[in-house]
Amino acid sequence: MSGSVSPLAPKTFAEMPPLRGVRMATAAAGIKYKNRTDVLMMIFDEPAAVAGVFTRSKCPSAAVDFCRRNLPAGVARAVVVNSGNANAFTGKKGREATELTAQSAAKAVGCTDSEIFLASTGVIGEPLDATKFAGVLDGLAVSAKEDFWFEAAKAIMTTDTYPKVATRSAKIGDVTVTINGIAKGAGMIAPDMATMLSFVVTDADIAPPALQALLSAGVGPTFNSVTVDSDTSTSDTLMLFATGAAAKDGQAKVVDAVDPRLDAFRAALNDLLRDLALQVVRDGEGARKMVIVTVEGAESDAAAKRIALSIANSPLVKTAVAGEDANWGRVVMAVGKSGEMAERDRLAIWFGDVRVAVEGERDPGYSEAAASAVMKGEDIPIRVDIGLGSGRATVYTCDLTKEYVEINGDYRS
Amino acid sequence: MSGSVSPLAPKTFAEMPPLRGVRMATAAAGIKYKNRTDVLMMIFDEPAAVAGVFTRSKCPSAAVDFCRRNLPAGVARAVVVNSGNANAFTGKKGREATELTAQSAAKAVGCTDSEIFLASTGVIGEPLDATKFAGVLDGLAVSAKEDFWFEAAKAIMTTDTYPKVATRSAKIGDVTVTINGIAKGAGMIAPDMATMLSFVVTDADIAPPALQALLSAGVGPTFNSVTVDSDTSTSDTLMLFATGAAAKDGQAKVVDAVDPRLDAFRAALNDLLRDLALQVVRDGEGARKMVIVTVEGAESDAAAKRIALSIANSPLVKTAVAGEDANWGRVVMAVGKSGEMAERDRLAIWFGDVRVAVEGERDPGYSEAAASAVMKGEDIPIRVDIGLGSGRATVYTCDLTKEYVEINGDYRS
Repeated sequence: MSGSVSPLAPKTFAEMPPLRGVRMATAAAGIKYKNRTDVLMMIFDEPAAVAGVFTRSKCPSAAVDFCRRNLPAGVARAVVVNSGNANAFTGKKGREATELTAQSAAKAVGCTDSEIFLASTGVIGEPLDATKFAGVLDGLAVSAKEDFWFEAAKAIMTTDTYPKVATRSAKIGDVTVTINGIAKGAGMIAPDMATMLSFVVTDADIAPPALQALLSAGVGPTFNSVTVDSDTSTSDTLMLFATGAAAKDGQAKVVDAVDPRLDAFRAALNDLLRDLALQVVRDGEGARKMVIVTVEGAESDAAAKRIALSIANSPLVKTAVAGEDANWGRVVMAVGKSGEMAERDRLAIWFGDVRVAVEGERDPGYSEAAASAVMKGEDIPIRVDIGLGSGRATVYTCDLTKEYVEINGDYRS
Repeated sequence: MSGSVSPLAPKTFAEMPPLRGVRMATAAAGIKYKNRTDVLMMIFDEPAAVAGVFTRSKCPSAAVDFCRRNLPAGVARAVVVNSGNANAFTGKKGREATELTAQSAAKAVGCTDSEIFLASTGVIGEPLDATKFAGVLDGLAVSAKEDFWFEAAKAIMTTDTYPKVATRSAKIGDVTVTINGIAKGAGMIAPDMATMLSFVVTDADIAPPALQALLSAGVGPTFNSVTVDSDTSTSDTLMLFATGAAAKDGQAKVVDAVDPRLDAFRAALNDLLRDLALQVVRDGEGARKMVIVTVEGAESDAAAKRIALSIANSPLVKTAVAGEDANWGRVVMAVGKSGEMAERDRLAIWFGDVRVAVEGERDPGYSEAAASAVMKGEDIPIRVDIGLGSGRATVYTCDLTKEYVEINGDYRS
C-alpha cells in the first residue's frame, strides 16, 4: 500500500539456498482480490518436526487456534498461508474455514489434517471462503519447488515494503545444516494491514520437543523484543520446521535441546531470528529510523525488558526520534511510568556514546551538538543505566512519523 | 505553541465566581523566557485543608516530592506554580530549588515552609533558578485577588489551546458551598511540552482526611480515566483545598468522608473533576475527535478499565478514529492484547448505537454506512461487551493525528 521502500531496507538480500525437504509454491486464489498472489503453500515431502510460538492475544485468529491444536503431535507435512483475510473474529465459520482448508491441503499432500499448519493475514471479521483453496492446493502440491524462498517471502508481504529473508548454516557434529527463514511484519497488527508471520525451516534432524525448546528460548530476545506500535496482532505466528534431510549426510538425530551438539545450531538459529526480527522493525510502518533501546542495571532482566518496552513504546520518545530531538527528559518519563523500580538519582542515559544524564541530573559535560549528531543517524542507540542491579535487556523499535498515521488512518473521508 | 484552538474546545467558558478564602496572582519571573507570565501564586489567608494525588511515576519531579512531604500535615497557606521548567531530574539542585521557593513563599505569606505546595511544568533536567521567585512572590501576596480564576487558568497553559475552568455548587446541610477548579493538560507529559496540573478549591469546611478520601475516590473515574498518549508526566498533580469560609455561614465542619451530609458535595466534586478531565482530553495534542471507550461485562471493574485503556491507548485504534474508519477489528485486537480474560465468541462491539460485532463475528445486520456516519462525528463512542461478568469502566481519549506527531516531533532538522 505504501508506495516507496523503507529507507531502512537492506541494501542487498541474502541469497537463499534451496533447503532439502521443503518445497514451496504460490497461487492467486481470489481471497480478496482477483489475480493477486494470496496463498503460499510449503510442503514437506517427508514428515518434518515442528515447533511454534504464537500471539499472546486473548482473541487469537482461527488459524492460531488450529495450529495450537496440531502442535503437540509435532509433525508437519504442509503449511498454508493466505493474505487478504485474517480469519480472525469469524466465530464458528472461522473454525469451519480452517478445517476445510486443512482438509484440502491434506488431500493435496496425502496426509492427515493434523499434519497441516495454517496462517492467515488480512482483514479481521470477514468470513474466509475456504472453498477457494480447494481448487488451487492440488496444483501447488505438484508445482512446488525447493528453490523458491525469495518468491515465498514476497508472497506473504502486506504493507511490508521489502521481502524479509535470512539464511544461516551451522555444524551439528560433522554435518553442516542450513536454516532458512522468511518473515512479514510492518505493523504488529492485522486488520486490513499487517501482522507478524515468520516461517523458518532447517534440514537438521531435531526432535520436536528439542525444536520447541530452541524456538521458545530464541524468540525472547528476538521477535519478542521488537515493537513497532505496541499493538499485538491476533495472528502473530512464528514456526520452525526441521525436515531431517541432514540425516542422510550422517547427522545423528538430536532429541534434547541441552545437547551440546546443538550449541552452534542454537547460535545460528538465534542469529537468524534476530536478523528477521530486525528486518521487521526496519520496515515498521512509516519508519525512518531504527531505535535500539538497551536498559542495564535493573533489578532483573525481566524488569529491564519492561523498562525498555516502556521507552520503546512511548509515543513521545518515538516522535522525538522522528524529529531528531535528543529529548532525554522523555526517556526519564518512560522509565518512570514503567512501574519498575528506579531511583531518579541513580539514572544515567546515553544517546549513542553521548552521556546526557547521570546521577539524576543532566550530565555537566553533555554536548547538545554531539547528541544531535547521534540523532541524525539512521540507527539511534538509547542506553539507560538504572543503577540498581544487573538486569539487562535490549528492545528494538522505530520512530513514530506522520507516515505511520497516514498509513493507518485510512483518511477515507 | 500550537497556533490554532482545538476544534473540540468548549463553545463558552464557565463564569468563575470568586471563592471566599483564596486569592490569586501571576507574574513574569523570567524562568525560561523574559516578559512571559510564568508563575501563579494561590494564597489562603486562613489555613486551608489540603488533599492531593500525584503522578505514579517512579521518577517524580522535585515539586511532587515536596508536596508529598507536606501533605500529611493537611494544611495549606499557598501554592506556587511555575511553567518553563519542570524541576524534574534535577537531583540535589532540584530539592534545593523547592526549598528556596517554599521559603520565599512562606516569607511572603507569613507561614511555615510546611504550609506551601508547589507545582512545576516545563523542560525536564534543567536546573530551576529559584532565586527568581524571591523577587516576585512578596508582590504577588499583596496584589492577589479573589476574582482571578480565568486568568489563573490561562497562566498555567503550555501546549493547551484553551484555558480549562469549571465551577459547581452544592449544599452541605443548609449551606451552599462552591467548588472552583482549573486544569492544564494537552499531552500527559512534560518535557518542553505539557503535563497535567489541576487545582480545585472549595469554601466548604471539610477536614483534611475527609478531603483526601473524597479526592482519592473522585480521581479514579475522572483524571485517572483520561489518556492522550499513554505517557505519564513526572509532574502530574491534582490538589483539592478547602478554605472553610462556609463555616461563617453556619456550615458545620465535616470530618468524615462517609458523612451523608457530603453526598451532594461529593457528586458536585466528581462532576467538576470529570468536566476538567474531559476538557484536558478534548485539548489533547493534535486532537480532532474525542473517543469515549466503555467496556462492560468484564470480570471486574479493574479488568474493564485495563481493557478500556488498552483500546484507548492503541495507536491503531486512535489512527483509525483519526481516519474516520469504523475499524472494529482493531478494537478486537486491543481487547486481545490487554491480557484480561476475554472470550472471542462472547464479544460484542458498538460504534455509537451501531452494533458491528456480536458473538465473535461481524454483526450480520451491521451497516457500514451507519458505522461510518458515527465516525464522522466529533465524539466517538466505542462500547465493548466482554460477556463474562459485570465489570464496567469508561475511559476517555482522543484520536492520533499527524498534528500530534508534528507537535511532539520538533522536526528541528
